[in-house]
Amino acid sequence: MKTTYRAMQVSSPGVLELVERPVPEPGAGEVLIRVEACGICGADAADIERATPALQPPRVPGHEVVGRIVALGTHVSTAWAVGQRVGVGRLGGHCNECAQCRQGRFQLCQNQPIVGATRDGGYAEMMLARSTGLVSIPDELSAEEAAPILCAGLATFNALKKCGAQAGDTVAVLGIGGLGHMALQYARNMGFKVVAIGRGSDIAEDALALGAHVYIDNRAEDAAARLKAMGGAQAVVTMIDHADTVSALLGGLAPEGRLVVLNPGKGPLQVPAGLLVGGQRSIVGSMTGTPFDSEKTLSFSVLVNVRPQIEVMPLAQAVEAYRKLKAGNVKFRMVLTMGNLH
Amino acid sequence: MKTTYRAMQVSSPGVLELVERPVPEPGAGEVLIRVEACGICGADAADIERATPALQPPRVPGHEVVGRIVALGTHVSTAWAVGQRVGVGRLGGHCNECAQCRQGRFQLCQNQPIVGATRDGGYAEMMLARSTGLVSIPDELSAEEAAPILCAGLATFNALKKCGAQAGDTVAVLGIGGLGHMALQYARNMGFKVVAIGRGSDIAEDALALGAHVYIDNRAEDAAARLKAMGGAQAVVTMIDHADTVSALLGGLAPEGRLVVLNPGKGPLQVPAGLLVGGQRSIVGSMTGTPFDSEKTLSFSVLVNVRPQIEVMPLAQAVEAYRKLKAGNVKFRMVLTMGNLH
Amino acid sequence: MKTTYRAMQVSSPGVLELVERPVPEPGAGEVLIRVEACGICGADAADIERATPALQPPRVPGHEVVGRIVALGTHVSTAWAVGQRVGVGRLGGHCNECAQCRQGRFQLCQNQPIVGATRDGGYAEMMLARSTGLVSIPDELSAEEAAPILCAGLATFNALKKCGAQAGDTVAVLGIGGLGHMALQYARNMGFKVVAIGRGSDIAEDALALGAHVYIDNRAEDAAARLKAMGGAQAVVTMIDHADTVSALLGGLAPEGRLVVLNPGKGPLQVPAGLLVGGQRSIVGSMTGTPFDSEKTLSFSVLVNVRPQIEVMPLAQAVEAYRKLKAGNVKFRMVLTMGNLH
Amino acid sequence: MKTTYRAMQVSSPGVLELVERPVPEPGAGEVLIRVEACGICGADAADIERATPALQPPRVPGHEVVGRIVALGTHVSTAWAVGQRVGVGRLGGHCNECAQCRQGRFQLCQNQPIVGATRDGGYAEMMLARSTGLVSIPDELSAEEAAPILCAGLATFNALKKCGAQAGDTVAVLGIGGLGHMALQYARNMGFKVVAIGRGSDIAEDALALGAHVYIDNRAEDAAARLKAMGGAQAVVTMIDHADTVSALLGGLAPEGRLVVLNPGKGPLQVPAGLLVGGQRSIVGSMTGTPFDSEKTLSFSVLVNVRPQIEVMPLAQAVEAYRKLKAGNVKFRMVLTMGNLH
Repeated sequence: MKTTYRAMQVSSPGVLELVERPVPEPGAGEVLIRVEACGICGADAADIERATPALQPPRVPGHEVVGRIVALGTHVSTAWAVGQRVGVGRLGGHCNECAQCRQGRFQLCQNQPIVGATRDGGYAEMMLARSTGLVSIPDELSAEEAAPILCAGLATFNALKKCGAQAGDTVAVLGIGGLGHMALQYARNMGFKVVAIGRGSDIAEDALALGAHVYIDNRAEDAAARLKAMGGAQAVVTMIDHADTVSALLGGLAPEGRLVVLNPGKGPLQVPAGLLVGGQRSIVGSMTGTPFDSEKTLSFSVLVNVRPQIEVMPLAQAVEAYRKLKAGNVKFRMVLTMGNLH
Repeated sequence: MKTTYRAMQVSSPGVLELVERPVPEPGAGEVLIRVEACGICGADAADIERATPALQPPRVPGHEVVGRIVALGTHVSTAWAVGQRVGVGRLGGHCNECAQCRQGRFQLCQNQPIVGATRDGGYAEMMLARSTGLVSIPDELSAEEAAPILCAGLATFNALKKCGAQAGDTVAVLGIGGLGHMALQYARNMGFKVVAIGRGSDIAEDALALGAHVYIDNRAEDAAARLKAMGGAQAVVTMIDHADTVSALLGGLAPEGRLVVLNPGKGPLQVPAGLLVGGQRSIVGSMTGTPFDSEKTLSFSVLVNVRPQIEVMPLAQAVEAYRKLKAGNVKFRMVLTMGNLH
Repeated sequence: MKTTYRAMQVSSPGVLELVERPVPEPGAGEVLIRVEACGICGADAADIERATPALQPPRVPGHEVVGRIVALGTHVSTAWAVGQRVGVGRLGGHCNECAQCRQGRFQLCQNQPIVGATRDGGYAEMMLARSTGLVSIPDELSAEEAAPILCAGLATFNALKKCGAQAGDTVAVLGIGGLGHMALQYARNMGFKVVAIGRGSDIAEDALALGAHVYIDNRAEDAAARLKAMGGAQAVVTMIDHADTVSALLGGLAPEGRLVVLNPGKGPLQVPAGLLVGGQRSIVGSMTGTPFDSEKTLSFSVLVNVRPQIEVMPLAQAVEAYRKLKAGNVKFRMVLTMGNLH
Repeated sequence: MKTTYRAMQVSSPGVLELVERPVPEPGAGEVLIRVEACGICGADAADIERATPALQPPRVPGHEVVGRIVALGTHVSTAWAVGQRVGVGRLGGHCNECAQCRQGRFQLCQNQPIVGATRDGGYAEMMLARSTGLVSIPDELSAEEAAPILCAGLATFNALKKCGAQAGDTVAVLGIGGLGHMALQYARNMGFKVVAIGRGSDIAEDALALGAHVYIDNRAEDAAARLKAMGGAQAVVTMIDHADTVSALLGGLAPEGRLVVLNPGKGPLQVPAGLLVGGQRSIVGSMTGTPFDSEKTLSFSVLVNVRPQIEVMPLAQAVEAYRKLKAGNVKFRMVLTMGNLH
């Protein structure tokens, strides 16, 4: 085995560069993974810019990681073995000891690292991971396909499962990008009447092809009014961080409807209490999910044949890939692959 | 039977006066009630001021009404009979035909009158009521005791049932007045660890006597921080219309905690999405309840011996009673009685 | 309009005959329907044999009725109009007054007629129906297609909605006939991993074509063991009345799994409590549904393009159609049409 | 510290004897506890008789254990420290690795020892315990009081939380012994209308004193009929292993009512499917609970001042205590204390 590996690290805020690092040994409860693919998520931008003093470089971004285990540390569950295909998402392995973990709410564990932010992620040929954060990858999916499911897929599938709608109900998806394009596919396969809400008309055709029954251009018309005219949405699942746009959609919820928020966003939502009271509507936050949830997301993706629409670039071109994402030139999801570096 | 009855009507916006009216005949689906008691709710102020053009005088306010049926119109359920003790709350009888009714969500019926606002209420010796809005009153309760349960009791008991907390969990009640003093008693009897949050220290002793385990003076300390220090509230049920105060309490919710809003309030709530997402918290609106819910509230009140704390005045002094309420001089609930007018 | 209509009535237990009857006037809360199609359900056999003394002839069977309103009685909701396409299922119109109705559980109303059993049904050119039992029929469905959805469709769609499984979970359908063939289609379109369990291998190909991912021949292998080997079913929805077969499947439930029963069946289920306790499993009964539920079932059927597989015969051949059903020669659903009698 | 400790062990099936054992070292993930009190549960009988070949002696029974940590093995959560008061219940520490654990359903972990059955329990001065099974004991409770809460309390409080009833609903508790007497107290403090169902009239007064509003002597009258006459129970929580008695109570459930079973029992329940379907009733199994659930049970017990009614005997008299239990001469709960052996 090689004794070094290449990683694309944030050397100073906003500066990604390819470096050579010594291959580490996995510690207690850790595994070493040879990375095969890593998705680029919108959240990577914050990790790369590293404005937060707490998040000082160097750090390897990337939290949609698929690869194979090449070494096991001590105290790793016997469920994991060398050679096994595994994935790692944003939440880097819960502690099993805190109050949230003891209630089985692992996604709310306060002691888990954030992959790509407080711990090195997957823009690299090798990566250490806590075994409690590992996800088993089904054979039916390539590494490139599986990677975005570990964050964009998981977050949206879980949000849809919490949206309170039943088969046949109208569910709107706000924001048709990396997350939204997964949400549309999942929602369609869960039996919902799916409304895609995006900006502009360019994305309309894609949205319908991905599973939306209806597309609403939020720039050209009042999406809440349109939903209301349709009888109201039982659920709106929102991907975006623009508080005003999200808030405006509350008016499109049917009685007993629910707004599911999965993006912490910027600025507070503006919520007229009368809308909530008058129709017994609700707003709920959804926090990505646990490794087990990821496995359910992957197996659902296989079952109903949902795949992310991806553009693939090699790790060495991560800077270019990231620039493309920042410029808004990646339609759905960009994935880095490591294969051609070996 | 007398052919006229006295009513305290809004003759012009803000002006209550005692008038003599001819006793009406109940129409199809209606009953005539001889009123025995009617609570004065904070919401009556809006009905009396009648700023809304749609709500033109004359109108009799009052939506916490208890009395006896004295005449039945046609097409009234055989469940109701002359002589029976009944009550009427804010929602004046659902239609049984609209989409919400056909789903059994009668409290969301769009065709129901609002008692005291779009239909005459109970500041009167007699009152017509739709039979679908009637509530059976248990023998164990006097008219004066039962009246406030039909609005203040119902709204708070239902909100607590929707708050998601389980026995032993911490539930905070924000606003210790007419509604809040019922909420504290119910919450205590549901097995919650009850935190009362009010303004000032005057109410502290009452709040503890009513069932609170802890009282927080929202003026003297940061209630959200205090809740957080206690491990967070599983639910906050809020009675008040002050959006900023409500919004500030979101920070006191435990992970998976829920804010229940039952007051349409003034101005939008400010909701940091990150608080919702990071802890999978939620905000839900609760809309008073159905007549069946009222009956469950009454029977729970009997079962666990919860009563409103009331001050009683005769109908003829309704103007004085209303002024007292407006001046903030009614501690918990004022109830008008009709008896001494006969 | 004609003054008589033809009906296929049970004249004495087990004897169906075509009779001519005078067209009735709809009473209060009733409508007169010109029937276009009526499905033949397995439950019709009990109605036709009429072993129960309470159910004396003459009686017209049939509770999967689609037609058009031709006359309205008094006190009918303005939602219904002459000329409108409507349907009627097994539950013949709730009372809106009993304790169950006042809680919005209309399907549990104790005052509603059972269509085809305690009130004349749809093996006829004309039929009276209570307006509270009416279902609106979408334009996209023919009368023949819509009819079986009003009972077989409704019962299975509702049972699946109560089964507790989430998208991607394994759901087994026990009994692949009139109800089961609808359940398979719905389950597939709700995102479940669908297992069909039937008797013999003849039905296997159909079951897979209807949406099952896996078919288990309950005669050739131990279905519970097979489910267990697959990881257990999150839900088993059973259509059949054979208590031993149903009971045996409890062993195939995953931890937290649920058995949903919609057929009252014969003889008690045998339930080892240890299976329930050890895995926190549950058994729940599902009672067909309300008219609003029927409308949701119809619109879901349109949305995801689910249709019953039907064989059609004219009313005049109802005896033959019924014999065919009894002999087990109707694969999925038989529907009577009335058109050719006019 | 002493190098030996005394334990009451099952030396051969049915034979309990006091032995002296060397104090062991805690292994990885284990702690050593100096036991202060251990409840005697009805389930101990099976452990002591050890009819199952898999459960061969010697074995120390007892799974309601309270004591203090005296030594820590490696890989124990930092939440636990020497000197801390802790408890251990029936489930001896989940694995955190299996599919159930990864879903947070620790009580369904298939890899956890059963204390007193597959691993030594608490009829002893010292005991080893897996740290994942540890429960923190609040200061307000003595060891003797806390011990029975770890099994009898936990099982009943959790079953009540799963019973689907809301405050004010009727909840029946079947079996008024060690578990039932805790259930009555909890149910009363959760706001239910509590019906106790027991055998004979001797226990009636105790049942009412513990919190029951109504006592039904199941020998003297038909409990299901009585419940039905009261309007039906929203939930029946059953403690007993007598399948016929449990089955008979299904008829006493209200529509949408739920039977909660927490005792694996003997022989299958007999469940008429029609009762389930006709009223949408359900039967659910409840499996004791997790250590976190135990802590919630303890803190609820403190909050609402619920305590087990106990009889206390020293460890040296365990044989006599056990005989007393077997003879039916322990009214509610027997607890062994270790103090006087030192």
